[in-house]
Amino acid sequence: MSAGEILTVVKIGGNIIDNPARLDDFIGRFVNDVKGPKILVHGGGKEATRLSAALEIPTTMIEGRRVTDGRTIEVVTMVYAGLINKRVVAKLQASGCDAIGLCGADGDVIRARRRNPEPIDYGFVGDIDPRQIDCRFISKLIDMGKVPVFCAITHDGAGNLLNCNADSVATSVAVAMASVRDTRLCMCFEKRGVMRDVDDPDSVIAELTPDMYAELRASGAVNQGMIPKIDNAFSAIDRGVKSVMIMEAGNLSSGIGTVIRK
Amino acid sequence: MSAGEILTVVKIGGNIIDNPARLDDFIGRFVNDVKGPKILVHGGGKEATRLSAALEIPTTMIEGRRVTDGRTIEVVTMVYAGLINKRVVAKLQASGCDAIGLCGADGDVIRARRRNPEPIDYGFVGDIDPRQIDCRFISKLIDMGKVPVFCAITHDGAGNLLNCNADSVATSVAVAMASVRDTRLCMCFEKRGVMRDVDDPDSVIAELTPDMYAELRASGAVNQGMIPKIDNAFSAIDRGVKSVMIMEAGNLSSGIGTVIRK
Repeated sequence: MSAGEILTVVKIGGNIIDNPARLDDFIGRFVNDVKGPKILVHGGGKEATRLSAALEIPTTMIEGRRVTDGRTIEVVTMVYAGLINKRVVAKLQASGCDAIGLCGADGDVIRARRRNPEPIDYGFVGDIDPRQIDCRFISKLIDMGKVPVFCAITHDGAGNLLNCNADSVATSVAVAMASVRDTRLCMCFEKRGVMRDVDDPDSVIAELTPDMYAELRASGAVNQGMIPKIDNAFSAIDRGVKSVMIMEAGNLSSGIGTVIRK
Repeated sequence: MSAGEILTVVKIGGNIIDNPARLDDFIGRFVNDVKGPKILVHGGGKEATRLSAALEIPTTMIEGRRVTDGRTIEVVTMVYAGLINKRVVAKLQASGCDAIGLCGADGDVIRARRRNPEPIDYGFVGDIDPRQIDCRFISKLIDMGKVPVFCAITHDGAGNLLNCNADSVATSVAVAMASVRDTRLCMCFEKRGVMRDVDDPDSVIAELTPDMYAELRASGAVNQGMIPKIDNAFSAIDRGVKSVMIMEAGNLSSGIGTVIRK
C-alpha cells in the first residue's frame, strides 16, 4: 500500500444489516469496489429489539436513542459485538477481505464517556471524543493488511461497556484517522443522498456546500432526519476529513450520492 | 519485552466465567501475577444454555459437546464472542491490561474445519489444526503490548462461524505460538490439579511424567473427565510447548498444580 492511498471509512446501518441479500451485495461492493485501505463501521438494526422482546426486556427509545439499562447493554453487546460483527467479519473473510472485528474495548481502541444522566438518563450510553481513539493502532492494523470492522459498542475504561451511535463512531473514527492519513468517509443510508426534492429520487445534490445547505434548511427542503447527518459531515470536514459522501450502499461502486468537501 | 520472556497461554472455563466474584479475582491474578507476554482463552459457561432456554431453542449435548444448529451458532456467537469476550476485555482494560478480544474469524486468526457429519452431525462445530493459526499476527499483537483474548468461536473461511472446544483452542494456540516463541500453557479448571486420590485435595501430583500417568490410568486413579485434559497436555508438550500446568484459577499466583514437561 502506498502512503498516498486514501483511507475510506464506510458506515452501514440497519437497512443493510437486516437484509441478508443487501448485506451480501454490499459485502461484494465493499470488497471489490472500495479501493485502497478501508474501515467498516456497522450499526445495529432490528435484531437487538427482537432479542430484547424475546427476553421480555422492554425497549425504550427517546429521540431515536435506545435507553440502555444493565440488561439492555448485555443484549446490544451480544447482538452488535457478537452476532452482527462476527457474521460480517466471516462474510468478508469468505470474500478474501482480511477483516478484524473490534468493539471499542478491544485494544482500548475507542474509549467513550458515559453520557451525563441529566436531563435524560440513557443508562450505558456513551459519547466519543475522537482524541480518545487509538488511530496509531488502527493504522498499524491497516499496514498489516487488515480491514477493521467496528460495531458501536465501546467502553469507559472502568470496566463498563457503552452503547454508542454508529454514525458517531464512523465520524469519530474518520476524524481520528485523518490525523495520521488522508481519509474520506462514506455514510450509507436508505436514500441516494441529499435531495432538492425528497419525493424525487433523481434530485440528488452531487455536491453540497455550506451555502446551499443553509438555503435548503431555510426553505425546509431538508428533512429533519437528515440534519444531524449533514451537520456530522460538515463537522468531520472541519476536523480534517477530506470528503464525506452521503449515499445508498448500492451506489458504493457508481459514485452516485452527495459529496461534502472542504 | 525481551525475546527470552516465555509466553503464557491461560485457559479458563465456566466455573470462573459464571461466577462474577471468581472472575474478578481471576482478572486480578492474571493481570498482576502472570508475568511477561500472555494470552487468555475463555470457555462459555452456562449463559449460552440459559439464553437458548429463554429463546426456546432446545439444547442437545452429545458426549459433552453442544450440537450446534443454525440458531444455536447464533446464540453461542452472541454469548461467547459478544457478551463474555467483551465483558472480560472491558474488565482487563479496567485493570490496566491492554486486552484485545478475538474470535477465530477476526484477522483469519484461527481457521477451523467443520466436523464431519458422520457418525454424529454436530452442526456448526469445528476442529482446529494449529497450522491454521496465524501465529505471526498474534505475535505482532503481543509485540505491540496487546493481550489477545480468544473465545472458542472460529470460522471455516467460507463464511460460516463454528463452535469449537475452548480446551482445544487453548492447546492449539499454545502449539502454534510455540513455533515462534517459548510458550507455556496453564489449563485452569475446578480442581487443584491431577490428584493421586480424587477425594484428597492435598494429593496433587506436582509433576506428572508419562510413566506415572500410565500407572495412574492402569490403576483407575485418574478420573474419566481428566483423561482428555492430560492427553491434550502431553500432546502439546510433544508439539513444542515447554510446559503445561493443570490447576485451579485461584492458584495462578501460588504455582500449586500439576505440571507436565518434556
